[in-house]
Amino acid sequence: MKKLINHVDHVLTESLSGFATAHADIVALGAGHQFVRRAAIKRGKVALISGGGSGHEPLHAGFVGHGMLDAACPGQVFTSPTPDQMLAAAEAVESGAGVLFIVKNYSGDMMNFQMAAEMLARDNASVVVNDDVAVENSTYTTGRRGVAGTLIVEKIVGAAAERGDNLAALKAIGDAVNSATASMGVALTSCTVPAAGTPTFQIGADEMEMGVGIHGEPGRRRVKLASADEIAAEMTGAILKDLSLKSGQEVILLVNGFGGTPLLEQYLMVHAAHKVLDGAGVKVARHLTGSYVTSLEMAGCSITVTAADAATLALWDAPVHTAALRWGA
Amino acid sequence: MKKLINHVDHVLTESLSGFATAHADIVALGAGHQFVRRAAIKRGKVALISGGGSGHEPLHAGFVGHGMLDAACPGQVFTSPTPDQMLAAAEAVESGAGVLFIVKNYSGDMMNFQMAAEMLARDNASVVVNDDVAVENSTYTTGRRGVAGTLIVEKIVGAAAERGDNLAALKAIGDAVNSATASMGVALTSCTVPAAGTPTFQIGADEMEMGVGIHGEPGRRRVKLASADEIAAEMTGAILKDLSLKSGQEVILLVNGFGGTPLLEQYLMVHAAHKVLDGAGVKVARHLTGSYVTSLEMAGCSITVTAADAATLALWDAPVHTAALRWGA
Repeated sequence: MKKLINHVDHVLTESLSGFATAHADIVALGAGHQFVRRAAIKRGKVALISGGGSGHEPLHAGFVGHGMLDAACPGQVFTSPTPDQMLAAAEAVESGAGVLFIVKNYSGDMMNFQMAAEMLARDNASVVVNDDVAVENSTYTTGRRGVAGTLIVEKIVGAAAERGDNLAALKAIGDAVNSATASMGVALTSCTVPAAGTPTFQIGADEMEMGVGIHGEPGRRRVKLASADEIAAEMTGAILKDLSLKSGQEVILLVNGFGGTPLLEQYLMVHAAHKVLDGAGVKVARHLTGSYVTSLEMAGCSITVTAADAATLALWDAPVHTAALRWGA
Repeated sequence: MKKLINHVDHVLTESLSGFATAHADIVALGAGHQFVRRAAIKRGKVALISGGGSGHEPLHAGFVGHGMLDAACPGQVFTSPTPDQMLAAAEAVESGAGVLFIVKNYSGDMMNFQMAAEMLARDNASVVVNDDVAVENSTYTTGRRGVAGTLIVEKIVGAAAERGDNLAALKAIGDAVNSATASMGVALTSCTVPAAGTPTFQIGADEMEMGVGIHGEPGRRRVKLASADEIAAEMTGAILKDLSLKSGQEVILLVNGFGGTPLLEQYLMVHAAHKVLDGAGVKVARHLTGSYVTSLEMAGCSITVTAADAATLALWDAPVHTAALRWGA
C-alpha cells in the first residue's frame, strides 16, 4: 500500500486536523474529531447535517459552509459514523428551527442516522439519497445506492435552508431533487482502504466495472474496457431511461471523478456525455466537473443528471462558500 | 493503459471541447483548439498568456478567467505548445496594453515562448517560473523546473493585471513572486502518457521518488517509502532553506496533489507540513489544497510556499473566477 500517511490508525484524525486548519475561516472541528461544523452558526435556520464513511472527500466535510451543510460527521474510511457523532453535531449546530439529516442509502448509515433521529430531542427529518441507477440492492445497500447526486441534493437544499425555508419545505425539496437525480459510475481500477492495506477488489488490466459503487462494490457487470463514447452512452442512456426525460428538459450535469482519473479524462467524458444528451434533446443548463464524490484513489468516473426547473436552477446558482464548492460568496 | 478515452490522437481536442462546453460562461476555444481564452476580453488590460504541455490540468486552461489568465496554450500531453499557438492567442486577447507571457522553465517551453515573443509585433515581456528546489537542471530543464508555484504566480500577477498594472509592473511582480516561491514534490507511482501507452517510469512497490518533477522526471533520489511526517519534513525543510525564511514571516501554503492522491492524504500532508512550518515560526496566512498542478494520474504531492507581504496577500485574496479557482467573484 502506497499512501501519504503516518499510521493507519491516525489517517482520519490527522487529515481532519489538516482540513480544519486549512479552512479555519469556514469550519471548526467538533471535540474528538466527531464532526466538522460551520465556524459561524446562522441562528433560526434549519440545520443541515450529513455524513458517512470517509474516503469520499471532499464529500461531506468539504461541503460544510454558507449555502450548504451546517455539519458533517465523518466515519472511518468506508464506515458509517455513529449516532453519537450525529447527536453531538446536532447539539452543536441546531438553533431552534430543527435538523434535516441528509443520508446516503447504505444500511449502516441508514441505521445510525435513524437511531440519532429517534434520540434527538429536537424537530428533525431526513432526506435519503438513492440516485445510483446501476443496481437495485448492493453489497451494503437495500435499494439503490446514494452516490454523487448527494452533492446536488446538499447544494440545492442548502440554498433553500439559507433563504429560510422551514423543515417540512426542505424535506420536500430534498426528496424532489433526489427523485429528479440519477447517476451511474464506472471503475477502471480498485482503491485501497488504509486499514485493509490491500485493494478492495481485483480487476484485470483490460477490464472495467460498469455500474460500480463508490466503495468499489460490484456494479452491473465486469467487461472489457470500452471507449469513452461507449461508456458515456451506456451510463447516460441508463440515466435518461430512469428519469424519463423529455426533449427540451433542462438539467444539471455532474461528471465526477472517483479520485484517480485526471481532469483531462473527466472533461473528455463531459464531451462524450453531451453527445448523448444533445441527441436526446436534453439541455444542459449547468455543469460541474471534478473529483467531488470519490472512492479514495479509484480510477473511473460517474455521470449524474438532475432534471431542474427554473426554481431549482436558482437554488443551484445561489451563493455557496465551502472548502470544495464556492461561488457568488 | 486504462484511460477514459476514445483514441490517443483525440484525447486533447475532445477534452478541450468538453472543457469549453462546461465553462462556456468563462472561456472560449480558439480556432483549431490552439488556445483557450477568456470569453470576454477586458480592453486596455495587459494580456496574461501562459501554456505548456497538457496533462497538468487544471493548469493552465483552468486558470483562464477574471483575475487570472487571458489565454492558455495547451500542447500535447507533456509537450510544449508551438509559437503559432502563442501568437494566435496573443492576437486574440491583446488589447493595447501588451502581453505578459508566464512560462514554466522547461527547454521546449522556453524556446517556443521566446520565439513567439520575438515574432509578436506587440509590447511583451515574460516571467519565467522556476520554483522547484529539488534539483538544479533536469531531464527537460536547464536550471530549476517550474512546477506548482506557477499557479501562485499566475494568481497574483493576474490580480495585479486586473487592477490595471502596466506591463513593466506586472513583470516585476511576477519575478518577485517567483523568487519568493519554492516547491518540492514526491511521487509514489508513475503516470502514463496516452500516446506512449506505458508508464513514464518504473518504481518499486515500496519506493518513492523524492523531488520528482511534474512529468515524472527523476528527483533527488529513489528511496523507500517514508511516513507522511518524514516526507513533509524533508520537502518543507528544503523549501525553508531555499527561501531563508525568518520566524514570523507570513506565507501562502499550497499542498498540491499530483492527480492520483486523494484529498484525504493531501489534507494529512497539510497537517504534516504545518508541524515543520509552525516549528520554524513561519505563519501560514493562506492555504490552498487540491490537485491543481498535476501529472495525469501520478500519486504523490508537492508542497509550495510563497513568502507574502500584505500587498501580495491582498492580490492573492482579490476576486478570481476561473474553472478551477474561484472566490470573491
